[in-house]
Amino acid sequence: MARTAGSDGERTEAAIREAAVDLIARHGYEAVTMRQLAARVGVQSAALYRYFPTKEDLLFILMREHMEALLDARSNVRPSCGDAEERLAAFVENHIAFHIERRAQTHISNMELRSLSPERLTVILKLRSAYEKELRAILREGAESGAFDLDDIGLTAMAIIQMITGVIVWFRPDERLSVEGVTRTYLSMTMRLVGASTNRETHHVHAGTRLRA
Amino acid sequence: MARTAGSDGERTEAAIREAAVDLIARHGYEAVTMRQLAARVGVQSAALYRYFPTKEDLLFILMREHMEALLDARSNVRPSCGDAEERLAAFVENHIAFHIERRAQTHISNMELRSLSPERLTVILKLRSAYEKELRAILREGAESGAFDLDDIGLTAMAIIQMITGVIVWFRPDERLSVEGVTRTYLSMTMRLVGASTNRETHHVHAGTRLRA
Repeated sequence: MARTAGSDGERTEAAIREAAVDLIARHGYEAVTMRQLAARVGVQSAALYRYFPTKEDLLFILMREHMEALLDARSNVRPSCGDAEERLAAFVENHIAFHIERRAQTHISNMELRSLSPERLTVILKLRSAYEKELRAILREGAESGAFDLDDIGLTAMAIIQMITGVIVWFRPDERLSVEGVTRTYLSMTMRLVGASTNRETHHVHAGTRLRA
Repeated sequence: MARTAGSDGERTEAAIREAAVDLIARHGYEAVTMRQLAARVGVQSAALYRYFPTKEDLLFILMREHMEALLDARSNVRPSCGDAEERLAAFVENHIAFHIERRAQTHISNMELRSLSPERLTVILKLRSAYEKELRAILREGAESGAFDLDDIGLTAMAIIQMITGVIVWFRPDERLSVEGVTRTYLSMTMRLVGASTNRETHHVHAGTRLRA
């Protein structure tokens, strides 16, 4: 008992997390029991508690890793140079790709904040805030350089995040819409929203219902 | 027992619904039990089942009423005449006002679709689809008249709904932001998003960070 062998342990821990994401996204955090989770993974409840002493530890770790992975993904694609419009495009593309790949985790991260203790809620909200701050910095830079034309940086940042996260609520790739196609359209809508100068002049894409030249 | 006196019964039913909205928004549908709900309302579980034979009946009724109330609110404010831009503004204002007033119900409606039976899910999705169809009709009219300039009617409709429903996730009126102020900014962002002609020419609102004349 209590053997914490390296790779075996890591595999078990990964299996617990994976099962937890699935169960919580499906039933809601409060409805899922550690017993149910242990049964799904095929371990004793006692083994579960060795990895995650409480159910809330598990929720917190899932949410923290989701946000850390998002911030990591950002720093991988962030163009070190490039103008505000290029940086905004990279932000939007990364955001959509990341969330489409992680629907269940995104659902949990958006829905289960209510179940975190105040201290842990603060940790998660700080990570979110760091992420949103990057977007606000891009918007501010674009507004200052004249590349963007917008009313309120904070509200525009929230509007963009809500709009592009919303993709995962309804979007399933099919014959009409690919991930690439949806990303392209959302990118174009984001550029409109910020009054990007290229959008004002040349960025219009034809697609069926557009009438004005 | 089993007395179904008019106004007493109605009051009890309303109390059950109100308590259910609060409990489900707080803990998630699956985690809430009928016993817990009865205790909150101060009735026997048997009384609860007289009004709502199953817990899923209750969830379905809450979700259906939410959507019906939204559609009703729409038909009350819908301008019978007016151009596409006026109609879009009325749609957005109503949507934000309605959802800010009904945070808990909105949370439930967005999150607990997973717990409906397939037949009932279809009913709710049809109501949603009727609502979204109105928005698409406004966008199509505006695109055809040249008032709007947009790429894809369906994706733009989803983007607008996600963006403006997102307000309730983070917005709490405070000294910096009033409901009216937030609504005004979101209205302006919506008009940008659809490439409204007034926005292209005169609709820009000054607010701190705007630099371009």
